[in-house]
Parts: sequence; structure tokens; C-alpha cells
Amino acid sequence: MAAPVWSVDPRTGKQREEVATEATPAEVDRTVRAAHAARASLADRGVRAAFLRTAADLLDEAGEHVIEAADAETALGPGRLTGELARTTYQLREFADIVDEGSFLDILIDHADPDLKPIPRPDLRRYKLPLGVVAVYSASNFPLAFSVPGGDTASALAAGCPVVVKAHPDHPATSELCASVLRRAAARSGLPEDVVSLVHGFEAGVELVKHPLVAAAGFTGSVRGGRALYDAAAARPTPIPFHGELGSLNPVVVTEAAAEERGEQIGSGLAGAVTLGVGQFCVKPGLVLAPAGPAGDRVLKSLTEAVSDSTEGVLLDHRMRDNFVAGVRERTALPGVESPVTPGESGEHAVSAGFLTVPAASLADGDTHELLLEECFGPVTVVARYESQDEISAVLGRIPGNLTATVHISEGEANGAEGSADELLAEVTPLAGRVLVNGWPTGVAVAPAQHHGGPYPATTSTSTSVGGTAIERWLRPVAYQNTPQALLPPELRDDNPLGLPRRVDGRREPGSAA
Amino acid sequence: MAAPVWSVDPRTGKQREEVATEATPAEVDRTVRAAHAARASLADRGVRAAFLRTAADLLDEAGEHVIEAADAETALGPGRLTGELARTTYQLREFADIVDEGSFLDILIDHADPDLKPIPRPDLRRYKLPLGVVAVYSASNFPLAFSVPGGDTASALAAGCPVVVKAHPDHPATSELCASVLRRAAARSGLPEDVVSLVHGFEAGVELVKHPLVAAAGFTGSVRGGRALYDAAAARPTPIPFHGELGSLNPVVVTEAAAEERGEQIGSGLAGAVTLGVGQFCVKPGLVLAPAGPAGDRVLKSLTEAVSDSTEGVLLDHRMRDNFVAGVRERTALPGVESPVTPGESGEHAVSAGFLTVPAASLADGDTHELLLEECFGPVTVVARYESQDEISAVLGRIPGNLTATVHISEGEANGAEGSADELLAEVTPLAGRVLVNGWPTGVAVAPAQHHGGPYPATTSTSTSVGGTAIERWLRPVAYQNTPQALLPPELRDDNPLGLPRRVDGRREPGSAA
Repeated sequence: MAAPVWSVDPRTGKQREEVATEATPAEVDRTVRAAHAARASLADRGVRAAFLRTAADLLDEAGEHVIEAADAETALGPGRLTGELARTTYQLREFADIVDEGSFLDILIDHADPDLKPIPRPDLRRYKLPLGVVAVYSASNFPLAFSVPGGDTASALAAGCPVVVKAHPDHPATSELCASVLRRAAARSGLPEDVVSLVHGFEAGVELVKHPLVAAAGFTGSVRGGRALYDAAAARPTPIPFHGELGSLNPVVVTEAAAEERGEQIGSGLAGAVTLGVGQFCVKPGLVLAPAGPAGDRVLKSLTEAVSDSTEGVLLDHRMRDNFVAGVRERTALPGVESPVTPGESGEHAVSAGFLTVPAASLADGDTHELLLEECFGPVTVVARYESQDEISAVLGRIPGNLTATVHISEGEANGAEGSADELLAEVTPLAGRVLVNGWPTGVAVAPAQHHGGPYPATTSTSTSVGGTAIERWLRPVAYQNTPQALLPPELRDDNPLGLPRRVDGRREPGSAA
Repeated sequence: MAAPVWSVDPRTGKQREEVATEATPAEVDRTVRAAHAARASLADRGVRAAFLRTAADLLDEAGEHVIEAADAETALGPGRLTGELARTTYQLREFADIVDEGSFLDILIDHADPDLKPIPRPDLRRYKLPLGVVAVYSASNFPLAFSVPGGDTASALAAGCPVVVKAHPDHPATSELCASVLRRAAARSGLPEDVVSLVHGFEAGVELVKHPLVAAAGFTGSVRGGRALYDAAAARPTPIPFHGELGSLNPVVVTEAAAEERGEQIGSGLAGAVTLGVGQFCVKPGLVLAPAGPAGDRVLKSLTEAVSDSTEGVLLDHRMRDNFVAGVRERTALPGVESPVTPGESGEHAVSAGFLTVPAASLADGDTHELLLEECFGPVTVVARYESQDEISAVLGRIPGNLTATVHISEGEANGAEGSADELLAEVTPLAGRVLVNGWPTGVAVAPAQHHGGPYPATTSTSTSVGGTAIERWLRPVAYQNTPQALLPPELRDDNPLGLPRRVDGRREPGSAA
């Protein structure tokens, strides 16, 4: 008997409905084979772009149902989910534009040069091909933007790769609903529905990453789960690229001058970033270096007020709630750690936000406080009070890789009139994939220049899961040597029949869409 | 006592001189730390480009000594090594040009758009940074172009990464000589010598890939050695990118029409590709699908003559010679395998070239002949005689990933007048990173559009180790959000003070070097 998959209401802990069953190994195999068989249908860029736009349209149409299902399963609230759906369909349309524009094919053409010294050069033409079936492991905390219709799926389909999504158990009904919309969009675009499929179940996820016809994987989730799947991907007879976004502390440094200039504003801004979405953002600031002394006190006072005023919230599931409560308790028990606003359980299902403080010196030396350098999922942050620049450096030197690093500096430091923020920026840049000045990392804009990734454990590769370049993860280059024009793919022919942007003999040629 | 490292003459099997000692773990650690400490010196692109050009100049100057040392250790001959040195210095200068031109930084700038729907966009600017210390594992078969001063080293330095090379034990003296030239070039360019270092010893190589300050690795060598290091890289607490080029069968398909049109020429061309460099090329054609019947017979007749006429040669070391002899013996023992020209030992140190034949049907079904689908390093190839298109497809369907795949077709098939070579090209493209028509894969041109990589086990990643895009392996993107102009790296400032090519708000801006 296949195990049932239940949709659960985190606000009550009660089962809502039986949504599906966990996929058996045979079902995973059938699903992957069907996806693989459908891959040629995605070869045409025009069809792919149309499919992505239709998917966006149909998701918008189904918006009310999607948001209702997602809210019932995640407790994230209709407001946030409405924004997330808009972001998700915007992302699908962005990738349609990227497919149309064609730069992602990275076309390079070098004509033969028989006179080249020291060695004559043959005719070489290179572009990029889709890798094949992509396994997508969806996140719990964004049931749309980082789940079935999210960035991994959108970028893989844009690249021409069929997708098999492993549903997150925290929102199986939303996953089923979104998968059915995507499959309907495929059919409406003249594609086989199997270009997108969904499987449920932990074991199904493990089977998936090991399947010989799976060519790459994208993952958003915990360090433990992501690392286990990464290891499985690397241990295959034929290893595959595993693009995982695992965990991130997202350090923030508040300079003394910034705290003096606008300590209250920084405190309240920080409270907003920590409590947004009940602290369940992969870019939630988890460690804040703030000055000891009066200026830092003002940051903390404002933070205390704003966090105390924040409403309680319901986490995505009860396991996360237990982990959050235990994680806070463990951290609070460390020597020197105080909790001006203690986060924790609130009633039977909710949690309240809070924050901890610790002298930065405790983090700088030894291993006693290492736990504070690990992500704690939920509405809590740790403020480390520093006495000197050296303490800032010492703590930054101990932080593992991050998605983001943020500095809050004064106006004088920003324009160079006062001290050098250059050095501070140079110090945080090696730690992260995105560096912010005087902002908050929550909110990951979908834009060509976005980079949502960072040194391990932020990601398991050097790539991004948000933004235009996310498509690069699902492609591999191939070069054709001395191939007759008639046999070349149209992308690589001299007359450029598809009007694509290319680099020919070192010179850029704009595409017709440019 | 540290183990001595001997230079050995493969023509006699005798030790030439003691060159160095194997690096202890403490020495590997010191070397990596020194490389890491030197990384900031490579930040300036102008200095990097000058360094690469100086390295090329000094290698050219030292040419006579380098070639003499390499010939004494590898028996590849001064002719071949002179060409390889020219290719190596050309490659260093090419990467200097790439560094100057700046496209590799992949600069994307999106200005803030507060009116963007559904979500306002912050200012985002992205470019690429060097990863850090790169470990390079050099190949045996190209003591220059894929060794100390080769493509991995050149591309890593171009990216701004210090390099620690693990010397190949088949040419330690050449490695020492080249490393000293590169270190001299660094000093002459105002850089610390430690931007390039060399370590010897198997254990040192294992230590190297595990070192916490090593940020990425490049490898060219065997499937067994490469996979072991890949596994070690993946098993680290912080996994690192491992770009390994491991093994490749490099299949060739000769159509019936091509064999009819120019069977003799194909046979002699094949003999050249199989015997070049005593068959020690990673792109040596190891499996040739040729038609059964009279047209195929003509290919074989010509191949037989040309291979019989080829001179005997000395392999890179005696272990390879033993493996070659054993590999040929094992393959020849398989049912249905014949050896029209039996390759094997020739005297005490040399080997002679040859080839085997087998009915393609034997390869198409079952696992009895799987060994013929594995690379056999040395001057031998396997010709599989096919009776039908279906047999071609069946054999191609069983071949693992390759660096190259080649088709030989007739003039009519090339221009579409006769049958469809389209399908054949579509069938071999998924197998390889480079597809050739009517040529031979030996000779890997250094060119922007080159791709020297392919599905596993050809490479462990989707990247290339030859050509301009090889630099991409050693970089990671970082995005700056809402960062004041004065604090941005000059590469990302609005006024583009370095004149770099960029993509700003979706529009390409050419650089001043373009």
C-alpha cells in the first residue's frame, strides 16, 4: 500500500485532506522516463517561451484557488501569498523573455583561420544545449516562488529541460494544484504534459536524484537535507550537477557611525526583516554585529520595541516549531547570551518573535558559541555587541558562506567623508553572494543581475537560483568543428536565420530581439 | 625522510636524476597558505595580463631547455614538444587578451526601478570574483599544454586565482623547470612568486584537494584517479568545484557513402589519429563504426597499411606500457574480436601500434563486450563493423560520455543531396562536447569557441579545459544591492572607469577594448 500524503493545517495541526500517495520507486522511474521521452518537445525556443507565458497566465487565472490552498497549508496569509504569486508569474514571463532574446545560448563562432600561428585554426562554433531531465526539490517557505512553479522549474523549462518536482510535504495540495496548472499550460502549448511532473515522498526524492536519466538537480531547503542529496548526486556512477541552496546566516554589520546616525531606524528595520513571514526567509538576518555602548543601545531599544509589538505567527509545520523552540533554548543557555525579548511558543500552535544578545568577543574566540553561527529558522536573530573593529573582523572571519551580507553605514561613510567603509565591504564580500548597503536582505528581486547563491553552505555550486543567469545551471556547451552549413544547427549558421546574439570572431553581433 | 622524486627516461626505464622530494602534509599546508596569502596581488587585471605575457615570453626563452627536459622524461620527441610549447605560450597570451578584454567578468547592471510591477526593483550590479586557490593536477601526456604552464594554470591565473600544481610523476624535472619559469615571471611582474607553486607526490595530491583553503580543482588524467579526487572534493566539509577531464572513447562513425567515396583516405587518416603521440591523446579515436562489406574493407585495408607502416614508439612510462599491453590482450581475447594488426610490445621499452575489429552486433547487445567501450590508452583503436543503421544506433546508445564524436560522411550527405546526415549528427551530439565532421579529433585548437569537455566520464562538470570559456571555472558571481557609487568596485560604477563590456538594463555596452 502506497503511503498517503496529507495536507495539514499548521494553524491547528489537523489533517485537511488526503492529497496524493507517495511515489514508489517504480512510479519515480515511470515519471522520469516520461519526462525524458518528452524532452525533444522542448527543443523549439518559441514553443518554450509561449509555454512559460501560458503557465503564468493560467496561474494568474487560478490565483484565488492557489492562494487559498497555500494559505490553508502554510499559514503564510493571503497578503504575502498574493505577492508571492505575482512574483512567480513575473518570473515565468521573465524567463520567457530570456528564451526569446537568446543570449543564454552563449553562441561563439570562430571561423577557420588556416594562417593562424603557431597552429592553423579549424572552424569552431559553440552554443549550449539543455542537460536533460531536471529534478527540482521545492522549499517549504515559498510554496510558489521556490516550489512547483518557482525559479528552478521556470529556469529549467526555459533551458529546454523537462522537470520532475519533488513536492515539499508542507504544501502537497498547493503543489498538486500548481503542477496541474503547469501541465495544462503544456497541453495548451502543444507540449506533452510530462514536461512537468510531481512526485511526493522522502524516498521518492532519494530515488529521483539517483535516477540514471536525471541530468541535474535544484534544491532549496535545509543544510542536512540538501547535503544528503548533494552527496547522493556526487556518489552516482555518473555524477550530476546539484545546485542546492542550503542555509545562510546572512550577517549584518552596523557601524558605530550608522548606529549614531539612525539607530532607531536600524532597530525597527531589523525587526521587520526578522519577523517578516514569521522569520522563515532563507535571507533572514541571523547575526547582527552592533556596537557596544550608547549608540548600539539605541538600536537595541528600537529593536526591542518593534519585536515586542510584532504579532505572533504560525510556523510552516509543527516540527519546525519544535526545532525553533529547541534552537532558541539551546542558544539562550550559552554563557553570556541574554534574551531581551525571548522568542518562543505562544499558545498551542503559534510562536512569538524575539532576539538574543551576546558579546562579540564570545563569538570571536574558541568554539563555545559556534551554535550562534548556524542558521536558526524562525523569528529570531542574534545581536553580537562589539567593542572594536578587531572584534568585527574576528567574528566575520568565523562565519561560513552566506546568501547575503549587509552593512549599515552612515552617510559620511557612504560618501567617503568619514572613515573607510571600503574595507568593511571588502571584508564581507568574500562571505556572500549578495552584498547590501543600508538595506535588508529579505526580498530577493527577480532581475538579470540578481545573484541568489553564495559560498557553501549557502549554495553547493557557484550559481544562482534567482535571476536571469539561473538558466545557466541546466545547460552544457557543445562545439561543432568543420561542420557543413547545411548540417549545423540554425543557431550556428553563418546567415543567423534565428537572429540570435552571437560573438563571431571576437566581435559581438546583436540579435534581432536586441 | 621525505621520499625522493626521480625523473625517469622511458626510453630506457632508467632513473635520470633526483628532482625533488614528495611534499609532506605540512609542506602542502605551507604551500597552500602561501598561495592564499598571495591572492590579493592578483586582483589587478592589468598586472595579471602582464604576468601571463611575461610567463609566455620566459617560457619561449627557456624553450630549448624545457623541450630537452620534456623529451628526456616523456619520449614525445622534440618536434611534437616544440609545437606543444608554442601552443602553451599562445594559450597564455590568449588568456592575457581575455583578461584585458574583460567580458569574462560577466558584468550585469540593473538600475533601480521603483515603478516596476509587481514589485519595485532595487539597484543590482553583478560581476565575477576569483574563487581562491586553485589546485591543478597535471596530465602525463601533455607535459606543457596540460601540465604546469597549461590551460588550467593559465585560466586560473587569468581569473585571479593563485595556483598550486600537483606535478605529474612522469615529468617532474619539466614540471620543476616550468614552475621556476612561472615564478620568475611572477617576480618580474611585481607579484609574489607564491602565486604559482608546485608539489610532488600522490599523498600530497590527496592532501591538496582536501585543504580548507583550496577553493577549486582542475584535473586531467585517468577515470580512476580523477574520480577518487572528485569524490574527495565532494566529501569535504565544504565541497569545492572539481573540473576533471577523465576519459573518453571518442567514437567515430564512417557512413557507407563516405567509405565508398574515400575509404582509403579515411583509413590512413584514422591511422594518423590513432598513432599520433603514440596514441596518448585524450581525444584519440578509440571506437570506429565502419560499414561491413566492400566499402568498409577498403577503409580497413588502408588502415592496415598505414598502421603497419607506423613507427614503434615509447609510451610515457612503463606502467602505461604494461597497462596498454594487458588492455590489448584482454580485448583481443573477447569473442569475435580480431586483430588485423596486433598492437603490443616492441623490444624492451617500445610498443607498436595496431587495431582490433569486432562485429558491431557484439557491442550492441548484452554486456560481454563492455570493455571495448572503455578507453585503452595507447596506439590502438577498435573498428566495429556494422550491418545496418540500427546497429550504429544500438552501439551509440551504449557509449558513455565523450570529449568528441566524429562523423565521416560523403559529399552528398554533407550537402543534403544524399540521405540525411542530420539524424546521425543529432544522434552523436548528446554523446560529446565537440562534434566533428570529416576530420579527426586529435588537435584541440585554442580558440574562444573551443569546448574540451563532455558528459561524464569525459568531464566531471559541464565546463571546458581549453578555450576562452575555461576561465569561467574559477569565478563566482557576486551582486551588490543599493551600494553607493563610491563604494562599488570600479567594474560596477556607472561611469565605467575601466571601459569594460557590460550589460546595463538589458542593453549591451561594448568595452573600450572591443
